[in-house]
Amino acid sequence: MDVTFLGTASAYPTPSRCVSCTAIRFTNKDSVWMFDCGEGSQIQLMKSNLKPGKISKIFITHLHGDHVFGLPGLLCTVSQNNQRSEPVEIYGPLGLRNYIRVSLGYSRSELGFNFVIHEMEPIKQQLPPDTWAVDTPTEAGVHPNEQPGSVIKCDERHVWTCLSDNSCTVEAVWIKHRVPSFAFIIKERDRPGRLEVEKLKSLGVPPGPMYGRIKAGETVTLPCGKEVGPQDVLGEPQKGLVVVVGGDSSDSSELLKVAQNADLLIHEATLENACHETCVERGHSTPKMTAELAKKLNVRQLIMTHFSQRYRPLSYDIKEGEQSVRTLLLEAQEILGDSVTCAEDLMTFTLTHETLTKLCR
Amino acid sequence: MDVTFLGTASAYPTPSRCVSCTAIRFTNKDSVWMFDCGEGSQIQLMKSNLKPGKISKIFITHLHGDHVFGLPGLLCTVSQNNQRSEPVEIYGPLGLRNYIRVSLGYSRSELGFNFVIHEMEPIKQQLPPDTWAVDTPTEAGVHPNEQPGSVIKCDERHVWTCLSDNSCTVEAVWIKHRVPSFAFIIKERDRPGRLEVEKLKSLGVPPGPMYGRIKAGETVTLPCGKEVGPQDVLGEPQKGLVVVVGGDSSDSSELLKVAQNADLLIHEATLENACHETCVERGHSTPKMTAELAKKLNVRQLIMTHFSQRYRPLSYDIKEGEQSVRTLLLEAQEILGDSVTCAEDLMTFTLTHETLTKLCR
Ligand SMILES: [Zn+2]
Ligand SMILES: [Zn+2]
Ligand SMILES: [Zn+2]
Ligand SMILES: [Zn+2]
Repeated sequence: MDVTFLGTASAYPTPSRCVSCTAIRFTNKDSVWMFDCGEGSQIQLMKSNLKPGKISKIFITHLHGDHVFGLPGLLCTVSQNNQRSEPVEIYGPLGLRNYIRVSLGYSRSELGFNFVIHEMEPIKQQLPPDTWAVDTPTEAGVHPNEQPGSVIKCDERHVWTCLSDNSCTVEAVWIKHRVPSFAFIIKERDRPGRLEVEKLKSLGVPPGPMYGRIKAGETVTLPCGKEVGPQDVLGEPQKGLVVVVGGDSSDSSELLKVAQNADLLIHEATLENACHETCVERGHSTPKMTAELAKKLNVRQLIMTHFSQRYRPLSYDIKEGEQSVRTLLLEAQEILGDSVTCAEDLMTFTLTHETLTKLCR
Repeated sequence: MDVTFLGTASAYPTPSRCVSCTAIRFTNKDSVWMFDCGEGSQIQLMKSNLKPGKISKIFITHLHGDHVFGLPGLLCTVSQNNQRSEPVEIYGPLGLRNYIRVSLGYSRSELGFNFVIHEMEPIKQQLPPDTWAVDTPTEAGVHPNEQPGSVIKCDERHVWTCLSDNSCTVEAVWIKHRVPSFAFIIKERDRPGRLEVEKLKSLGVPPGPMYGRIKAGETVTLPCGKEVGPQDVLGEPQKGLVVVVGGDSSDSSELLKVAQNADLLIHEATLENACHETCVERGHSTPKMTAELAKKLNVRQLIMTHFSQRYRPLSYDIKEGEQSVRTLLLEAQEILGDSVTCAEDLMTFTLTHETLTKLCR
């Protein structure tokens, strides 16, 4: 699995860093999932090695502009090189449907593919107390490429199940922010181990269709009457990876109940520890807060992102008086040592069960 | 007056060229007007010398994404350095109000300044025949920073008057495109000539308040009973400049009735002459079409913009097999000679009555 950071800044984009957008490429499925889509994401996508036509799902953590204003443009541009037959599935908080309908509707943007929007219904705890009403969508505004989607409600544990198929599940929990915000937990299912051909031979299983049936989990009966099952001839199952992609948050403790021992946590760290109060007030986390969360979750690796533009990217030469993302990294390292790193625009990480390898462009 | 091109591409942005956004800086008023606001405009604005806090009016030619998807983000970012007391006035086609309300509403973007939206109501000729309905805005969705705006209807000549004050008028005419699209005609009013002090003295006008009254257009009576008026002591009036900023168009002939002898025409030229049919079908112009319009209008200068991304910017080194904006420039020059040039991202032109000077960054 490859994780590419297309935008790693909070609040607004600048020439040196774009706003939130993270892509996960599943090498085994040949598909790309996007998480958040701030303004300029489509330009970053072009600068990356990712193929826009491979985007099959888009997840929006929350509807702040730095996470969603690039979505209509991305859909339009991806559409130009993408006559995919399967719809693109889009997940996000309630309101996303109308935002997309209105943006694509008034701009009269017909797409080359269909899409489905699944809205997560927030719970009372997530709603800001004092906001103005926004127009409610009506059926009049359905986009010609829109297929019926769903409204996802949380279960009694306060977990939203976005999808669950035979390769993975995606769940969401709410995290504390100024508007309803979510963290997504992607859990790949374990895959059966490899067929150990020597064992098959020694047990007398004839090469052919039986191999496939055993691999698929079946117990087969040999001509001699002996039964052979997966446990006899399959190696260790390949554990699925667990990755968490969080939205903006000043408290992500809901993750504790569903994301223990994750392989990778991608979480914001907007301002340094010294700005704790301002940071929390604005609904954000400091490196200390994020690193402590990672420690409690016992994650293998933490990648921090969503840095205030006041911090220059790690790879820049810092001039006198300038601040760097290094400040944030050092603060998190005090708690996590080597198991934390900072994202940078257009940086790709390859995650396996053994390693997290950074590839810079 | 300075004209800065922030984005000069059609359809979608790439790392080498942003989509439509043009800024006019009025040196005498110390204010900046934006025309269109494609995705990434706010990043381009940061790269320019323009001060975001000086933006007082925004004009949107039409609601296609490459002209409007950068508007919500621009408003949010400008808001951070702009606690202006006067509202920002936004002009554009019907639908703009709801697009802004929904974008800023769901993203819960409160601004540091107020804004007013004036929508231009299109006429039947502008409406595409076969489009899906988009939600109609209700009063529920009014943004907290929104002040009451207007719906501007055209007069019997099919001219929309956006504004008219003592420094200038802005009118609009419709131009042919796939969605309602407009061209804006900015006409600065003539300013009175300078007081010629020698003449004042020889006529016996005593230095003091009378100077100002004459300059303001009044005829004054001297103690001796002689009358002295502006015509006696003022130099040549300073003619106001006339600038036309067009939206996407495959036919801008409506300009012929209001924009004769303009000082500057900014008009799209999306594809080369050889692509005439495709170009017109998509609602766009070729250099030939645009240059012929400029000739009929008898404009002093034409600046072409909105080039397909297939044409690399003028200043780039073209590799084998690549096309350049130069192709488009040469085609227009065949008709207009030296009085045409091509815009490039972040290029600024200074327009006076005598010259149009290019300043590249
Ligand atoms: Zn954010
Ligand atoms: Zn946020
Ligand atoms: Zn356009
Ligand atoms: Zn257009």
